[in-house]
Amino acid sequence: MEWTREQRYLLYQQHSALELLKLQAQADNSPEQLRYHIRPASGLLNDPNGFSYFNHAWHVFYQSFPFGAAHGLKSWMHMQSTDLVHWHSRGLALTPDNEYDSHGAYSGSAKQIGDRLFLMYTGNHRDADWVRTPFQLGAWMDKNNHITKLEEPLFRNPNYISEHFRDPQLLEHDGKYYALLGAQDEKTEEGHLALWTSDDLKTGWHDLGYVDFTPHDMGYMIECPNLVNVDGHPVLIFCPQGLSKDVTNYENIYPNTYVTGDKFDFENAKLHGSSQIPVNLDDGFDVYATQAFNTPDGTAYAISWVGLPDIEYPTDSQNWANCLSQVKELHLKDGKLYQQPVAAMTNLRSNKGINVFSNETKIINEHAGQQCELNLTIAADQSGTLHLAANHDLSKSLQIKFDTNRGSLAVDRSTVGESVAEKYGTTRSVVLPTHEDLKLQVFLDHSLAEIFVNDGRHVLTLRYFADQSQQTISFDHAINSTGTLYQLKNI
Amino acid sequence: MEWTREQRYLLYQQHSALELLKLQAQADNSPEQLRYHIRPASGLLNDPNGFSYFNHAWHVFYQSFPFGAAHGLKSWMHMQSTDLVHWHSRGLALTPDNEYDSHGAYSGSAKQIGDRLFLMYTGNHRDADWVRTPFQLGAWMDKNNHITKLEEPLFRNPNYISEHFRDPQLLEHDGKYYALLGAQDEKTEEGHLALWTSDDLKTGWHDLGYVDFTPHDMGYMIECPNLVNVDGHPVLIFCPQGLSKDVTNYENIYPNTYVTGDKFDFENAKLHGSSQIPVNLDDGFDVYATQAFNTPDGTAYAISWVGLPDIEYPTDSQNWANCLSQVKELHLKDGKLYQQPVAAMTNLRSNKGINVFSNETKIINEHAGQQCELNLTIAADQSGTLHLAANHDLSKSLQIKFDTNRGSLAVDRSTVGESVAEKYGTTRSVVLPTHEDLKLQVFLDHSLAEIFVNDGRHVLTLRYFADQSQQTISFDHAINSTGTLYQLKNI
Repeated sequence: MEWTREQRYLLYQQHSALELLKLQAQADNSPEQLRYHIRPASGLLNDPNGFSYFNHAWHVFYQSFPFGAAHGLKSWMHMQSTDLVHWHSRGLALTPDNEYDSHGAYSGSAKQIGDRLFLMYTGNHRDADWVRTPFQLGAWMDKNNHITKLEEPLFRNPNYISEHFRDPQLLEHDGKYYALLGAQDEKTEEGHLALWTSDDLKTGWHDLGYVDFTPHDMGYMIECPNLVNVDGHPVLIFCPQGLSKDVTNYENIYPNTYVTGDKFDFENAKLHGSSQIPVNLDDGFDVYATQAFNTPDGTAYAISWVGLPDIEYPTDSQNWANCLSQVKELHLKDGKLYQQPVAAMTNLRSNKGINVFSNETKIINEHAGQQCELNLTIAADQSGTLHLAANHDLSKSLQIKFDTNRGSLAVDRSTVGESVAEKYGTTRSVVLPTHEDLKLQVFLDHSLAEIFVNDGRHVLTLRYFADQSQQTISFDHAINSTGTLYQLKNI
Repeated sequence: MEWTREQRYLLYQQHSALELLKLQAQADNSPEQLRYHIRPASGLLNDPNGFSYFNHAWHVFYQSFPFGAAHGLKSWMHMQSTDLVHWHSRGLALTPDNEYDSHGAYSGSAKQIGDRLFLMYTGNHRDADWVRTPFQLGAWMDKNNHITKLEEPLFRNPNYISEHFRDPQLLEHDGKYYALLGAQDEKTEEGHLALWTSDDLKTGWHDLGYVDFTPHDMGYMIECPNLVNVDGHPVLIFCPQGLSKDVTNYENIYPNTYVTGDKFDFENAKLHGSSQIPVNLDDGFDVYATQAFNTPDGTAYAISWVGLPDIEYPTDSQNWANCLSQVKELHLKDGKLYQQPVAAMTNLRSNKGINVFSNETKIINEHAGQQCELNLTIAADQSGTLHLAANHDLSKSLQIKFDTNRGSLAVDRSTVGESVAEKYGTTRSVVLPTHEDLKLQVFLDHSLAEIFVNDGRHVLTLRYFADQSQQTISFDHAINSTGTLYQLKNI
């Protein structure tokens, strides 16, 4: 279905409740629907927003267009959790309802200030000629989740920054507030990160200029920046658009990347000791717009949009699209970012786990289904294929091809079911240490796979669209391995 | 807020999606909202419908008016579970969309027939002069939860039955189908149960007349009948309206009652060995329209609307109202119905439980909160008051007053918070055996209390509307008792 501009920007009050109820039921009943991840109540979900801790609970919002699988008029939908795993909807939070966010309450962040949560976001405004102005906006959420928007914008784009100026991350440092934003230079049309500051959020915001974190050209725009402290080091996570593959090799339409540093100098907007060359945050097919934040105790958590701009997905025809990843805890080891499931993910396990050994048989489990967790250690110096969500003869499956002799792992989604974004390839691969055991932790959730490699050294996240009757997990031949398989509960 | 007829019967397509999203968020964020019971996604919930087992899952639907706390244009909303405890929304199922259910897809039942679920319900039709015709309707639900309505009604009210003819329970017996319905006699204006039969659901339904189960006058209408087999005996559960208190003593505006029997004679529409005098199914304030059914293995389960017709509740001002009870397993002992939590309710416990002893102190727990389960055995020959959802000095609380000398237990909701239906009294009581230990199993869910007495010999279900800061559970003085307190998880 082609969406016209008029359809995409029809006001929520111009859509009917019956239409919305039917779209919600359609999403609720989809066989491919996620059962233990955040997914759209209806329509399309994109960026996670406002990931935060407030009032004894975790909060995350998501960009929502409730009326179909299209990037139409966006709102923030609110999810709340006490364990970072079981998320419950708190419904529509920020909705476009004034001049400044008339064409979308776009992405942003949240931070507890005093006894309220401050939401900072980009209002997308277009005039009658469809000329865009991005406004950086604020809103307060109280302990009853009641939200009051500030009446006036915090700031807008300076002359040297184009209409592409969005996704503020609100930070606090040494008693001052800072906002880190994605920006496009008006003149050069190059992507940058911009830093602004305010003493008290209320008085004038002050432009600290572009952030100095790499000498390389970052393409034509950077979206969704996050500065987060991981084990004592600043890590900058962002999404460069149009990044040259000479700088960073990537295969998705747009990458989600990170650089590490030694120290972030807020006053001078500089990442000291930057690793300079962006590294892919996720080695799978579908991660974008990851949002990370530091909890009050300093832990760094991240959650990702599993979906990409400008890509069609098979559930579009069911009028819903995309999901969020599970929450990942971030650590740095030897300058590399590790991403691991949070501890409470174990609470989803509905049984004590089935021990799996594949030394004499290739089959791990014929009834594993597509809502499970597989923890597997494959002994060193072997190669083979692990088939997930496979049919009986393994002719259909999501394939993980590994070679611990030569040190390689590749995920191939070409044979599992409906194709997705084939233009950008059907395999993704990572380099492994040679002659070492391979540890895999795989989560399947009906149309989402999250593959943690070697304790989170790599994560490969991807959507797949298979018949739900494909219940088998099996190697292609007997492999010396041990592990545990868990069925997982709905959240 | 007074709802006009026009507002109540505005078509769903005439309401806006924005209005619905805001109502959903309001329900999601209500401090009194239930967290482990089925509650309305928005607006008003009433009768449970179509409680059944199909396609490896439990199903229950609820009567829904999504647009506020009013009895407006009703639909069926669908909930699904694999354990009778964790329910997940499958959204709008039956909606008024044709001549026969134009003014509401009213209550009914569901039964697996072949590889589909047959939904049988009452279509509420009104003509231009607001004259009502009730149609008994059918629909098929397939394994993808896709519903197709039959094009024509199964049957309508015969001449001798008034417009009050509804709530069909579909039964199967000896290869034939039967429908048990609530009915009002056109001439006498008395309430009856009607029985109809069909060989194959498709060909003409045949009227077997009124069910012979009591010589007593049942008032002016009987709603929501259920015939269920409990431990080998037929039990008839129903809601008589206008029942004389000389027949059955009750205090709620309308009671939900049952009779037991030895054998149900389908051909002659007669309950042999009927206990004749209706007994209150629940001894609390708010149970109505309970729906029970036998699973394929013969177990009898029931679920109740916690709410009453023609009663205002405090959350009406928040635009949502009512909930369903937890599922109760039914048993018969000495001719009395026992109702017990299903086994999987223990999966909601988020901790191992805190042992509570009150022999030397009156306080059971100061931080129990209002999402918990308390199992308590109070030793014989004591009297006192158990305060639930209490503030620090116990001046506000839900009170359970017990006297195991004289054999009485009363629940008093007059001091817990906002008043509810005070016209119908603020206490409810049951008779206990004297000089015996008293066993209590109490579930609190923010604004719902379910109190199981002596292993389900009595259940007292009630809504209460207290400040959520009332976290204490305490006796009024030290009581010789032992027990366990559990925090419960959200579903």
